[in-house]
Amino acid sequence: PLLPEHHPVYLSSRGNSILQHQGILQEGFAQYGLNKHHDSNNPDGILNLGTSENKLCFDLLHTRLTKPDMLHVDPSMLQYPDWTGHAFLREEVAKFLTHYCCSPKPLKADNVVVMNGCGSLFSCIAAVICDPEDAVLIPTPFYGVITEDLHLYSNVKLFHVPLDCEADGEDSRPFHLTVEKLEEALKSAKEQGVIIRAIILMNPHNPLADVYTIKEMVAFLNFAKRHELHAIVDEVYMLTVFDESVTFHSVLSIDRLPDPQRTHVMWGLSKDFAMAGVRIGTLYTENTDLVQALAQLGAFHGIPGTTQYQVAQLLQDREWISKEFLPKNRQRLKAAHTYLTGELRSMGIPFLDSSAALYVWADFRKYLRESSFEEELALWRRFLKHKVLLSCGQAFSCSTPGWFRIVFAAQQHHLQLGQFVEHQSLHIIRKSVKSDIADSDNASVVNSASSPQSKSSEQLKEKESPAPDTDSLASEEFVLLDCQASKPTESLASLIGTLRHQIRSSDWLEKNTPELSAGEDPEILDVFKALLQRAKK
Amino acid sequence: PLLPEHHPVYLSSRGNSILQHQGILQEGFAQYGLNKHHDSNNPDGILNLGTSENKLCFDLLHTRLTKPDMLHVDPSMLQYPDWTGHAFLREEVAKFLTHYCCSPKPLKADNVVVMNGCGSLFSCIAAVICDPEDAVLIPTPFYGVITEDLHLYSNVKLFHVPLDCEADGEDSRPFHLTVEKLEEALKSAKEQGVIIRAIILMNPHNPLADVYTIKEMVAFLNFAKRHELHAIVDEVYMLTVFDESVTFHSVLSIDRLPDPQRTHVMWGLSKDFAMAGVRIGTLYTENTDLVQALAQLGAFHGIPGTTQYQVAQLLQDREWISKEFLPKNRQRLKAAHTYLTGELRSMGIPFLDSSAALYVWADFRKYLRESSFEEELALWRRFLKHKVLLSCGQAFSCSTPGWFRIVFAAQQHHLQLGQFVEHQSLHIIRKSVKSDIADSDNASVVNSASSPQSKSSEQLKEKESPAPDTDSLASEEFVLLDCQASKPTESLASLIGTLRHQIRSSDWLEKNTPELSAGEDPEILDVFKALLQRAKK
Repeated sequence: PLLPEHHPVYLSSRGNSILQHQGILQEGFAQYGLNKHHDSNNPDGILNLGTSENKLCFDLLHTRLTKPDMLHVDPSMLQYPDWTGHAFLREEVAKFLTHYCCSPKPLKADNVVVMNGCGSLFSCIAAVICDPEDAVLIPTPFYGVITEDLHLYSNVKLFHVPLDCEADGEDSRPFHLTVEKLEEALKSAKEQGVIIRAIILMNPHNPLADVYTIKEMVAFLNFAKRHELHAIVDEVYMLTVFDESVTFHSVLSIDRLPDPQRTHVMWGLSKDFAMAGVRIGTLYTENTDLVQALAQLGAFHGIPGTTQYQVAQLLQDREWISKEFLPKNRQRLKAAHTYLTGELRSMGIPFLDSSAALYVWADFRKYLRESSFEEELALWRRFLKHKVLLSCGQAFSCSTPGWFRIVFAAQQHHLQLGQFVEHQSLHIIRKSVKSDIADSDNASVVNSASSPQSKSSEQLKEKESPAPDTDSLASEEFVLLDCQASKPTESLASLIGTLRHQIRSSDWLEKNTPELSAGEDPEILDVFKALLQRAKK
Repeated sequence: PLLPEHHPVYLSSRGNSILQHQGILQEGFAQYGLNKHHDSNNPDGILNLGTSENKLCFDLLHTRLTKPDMLHVDPSMLQYPDWTGHAFLREEVAKFLTHYCCSPKPLKADNVVVMNGCGSLFSCIAAVICDPEDAVLIPTPFYGVITEDLHLYSNVKLFHVPLDCEADGEDSRPFHLTVEKLEEALKSAKEQGVIIRAIILMNPHNPLADVYTIKEMVAFLNFAKRHELHAIVDEVYMLTVFDESVTFHSVLSIDRLPDPQRTHVMWGLSKDFAMAGVRIGTLYTENTDLVQALAQLGAFHGIPGTTQYQVAQLLQDREWISKEFLPKNRQRLKAAHTYLTGELRSMGIPFLDSSAALYVWADFRKYLRESSFEEELALWRRFLKHKVLLSCGQAFSCSTPGWFRIVFAAQQHHLQLGQFVEHQSLHIIRKSVKSDIADSDNASVVNSASSPQSKSSEQLKEKESPAPDTDSLASEEFVLLDCQASKPTESLASLIGTLRHQIRSSDWLEKNTPELSAGEDPEILDVFKALLQRAKK
């Protein structure tokens, strides 16, 4: 939609390139921004299962964040701060990491840098450990936004280490990261004349949700040391491990890091405390030059003093964290994960089984007509057309097309999956699409235990048609036009329905006023009108 | 203190250059960071009259910011936001600016970008309207940090438009900005092959505190339009005009901007609401390309959702702003300004008389042994040695050495100057340094109306000596060693005393435990011990 000739007048070449830079998912997020799902206000809006956010714990957070201790202001909080973060916050972060990362010795506040998000930290670190056009190794697939984090301001590139989705003889598991693959990629970079300055390691991994053992991590760190590479270790999901059989080990638990001056550990509140909107990223590094260099850029990434105080209050409330928030959060995540993976299993969609992070990395290859990223994008758009926003593998530089990241912790706060599972009232009715054209019937219902009306609308059916044909609206069945061609649409349409209903209370149709959707898509409006009439009969 | 050979191992060339980049004032701020003045905890620490902060209104802000409406959290505040700011905040900013900038038509939320501070806005704007190595025109002297704001991330340079401190025949006032000077500088830039993309205009000006008329501003904007330059208009002090005889006119009050697509107006909470620590900068621009380009960089400059909510609450509370905060703030600023300028007048130190902003631009040229920036820096260091941090002209690229910016709104919150003046209890006793060596006696007292002990310690004397000579400590008089050489030290030492005491309640010595200062300077400790003993007699 941006005409190139429209721009050069006002923005610079760099500005135009920044403006026109569109991640592959940006189209979806733009649509989502204009049409966000909301239970009551916009029930037919787009469901965002693409952004890795934990929406299961708002009740817990609300209770804690509105306690009176959060409403404190002192003069220093309103004045220009230390750009690495207020000392009181860095102290609390150091204590927090010492405890939850099981550090053998107390971590030091002077080694902590706090900025407004890990994206800011990536940008700053890239600026000071790399020169423009230098590159950083990263295994693929990876959380795609890191590309922009390193590139937009700091002009640093990523050099991919492709991981294979097939577990072969050598590899014990799919997407298996090994030192050999790192060595191979580094060799290849050197051959291409690319200067590699660092490696990014994510644990738990995004999007694989793999949890690496300490032995694996030490091997990766030794690889970095061998080649004098900085190791940026992203542990932002470290507390989001929801099965007791799995133990996460932070690299900060290592007694002697292989190369402490080049090892930099990131953490933040976005994932583990479900607070992406509070913009807190932390870095732990023994490299005082790095800390000082980051301080120089810190003015661009500052956090309000009042927020710093609140975060410090939160981090020091171990009672709440360890006895209230973490157990309940894990319980809910586990329930949500169980639910989604159960659905995937029942549809025969393979996925990486894990007990960490907020998403599942799932294999939709069987839904591609051919193995190409065009087909993957078409599938992604098909989800989007049905108001479900996911992340496709291409956005994460996956080397094989057909993989998607589905966030399972993105339900609305009032629908507490954990509770539902407990009460055994999570009742999903799915009717498969009967054929590859027309007569398709896709219905799913979530019975809300908290809603008294749930039982009266148990067999609610949802059908959508993008076709403006009013004749077909009058009939009992509607077509899913874009699911016509391929066999697998059967379970795909079912999945779409499942995803949509996962976050919807059963009385959504009662609340829905079809006019809401009129602005977005007039065709959909007609479908809704027909559905509503039918439901009222 | 940074050894070059120590660095290349870990940081890149760019990283080392960022690390070693030291603004001329950074030495002072580093000292200040380690030894901040605090009334009770560190009364002999460094007073920061160098940072432009309003510390007169903490009581008002504290009352407002701890009202129950500030403690509100909803789910969207904890989730990833619109990177130009939450819609609810942009709405409030638009309404606020419409009202206080007297815009002839309602300003639009879509034209507003909110980021964590105006430094972030400068950095982003530079990135998207300039290419690397391009330059931006700026009249000198100017708030020096803008140099780093444009350079560190975005590699954009400033091209100076030098303003003369002498009012000559042509110029009606010192440091007079005229279109002719802008034309001349632009011509000179072109001759040097420098590509100029924009001009930065500050109104009220920092550090001159000049308030430009709307006629002047339109002339500057027409100059920009003529040359297709973006005009970045920084109005962060727009509400900090404390004399009713002076009216500030925002460029947003202009019915038809000369070049609306290239006019970008900055405002923020740091100065006008004395909240630099809350990190809120706003931009108003009709250029939607610019808005979209800034949105791409916005993830690096995000503000917590909860803070955005609080700021929106504050901005919509017109009753509090217009009837409580602004009148009291202006009254206190005026009193503080009157006090400081009175002192400057009595010492014969010229300054630019103005009724805006938080500082006075003062002419200390008579204290320089010769007109050089080395001498200026030596004078700045002399202030610092006496624990008073100021900003010297060189840090603001002033073309003539000897000018200093003194912030007059930097008193401790408990010392409410307005109240003091009202009660006529502001009693400054100054004894001049009697000669150019030894026997100097520099004493000042501020009687605190709020302190019952104030009258008992009315003639409190402070003497400091950096000399370790215990004999001189035993005597009644102490020397100000570094004020030996020049005649003008008489009033200079007096000014130092005045500045120190302006923020100190009269019972400081009672509260002071000399051990506090032991870490910093063992010599000073001895002086304090002697003073304390004498005071107890």
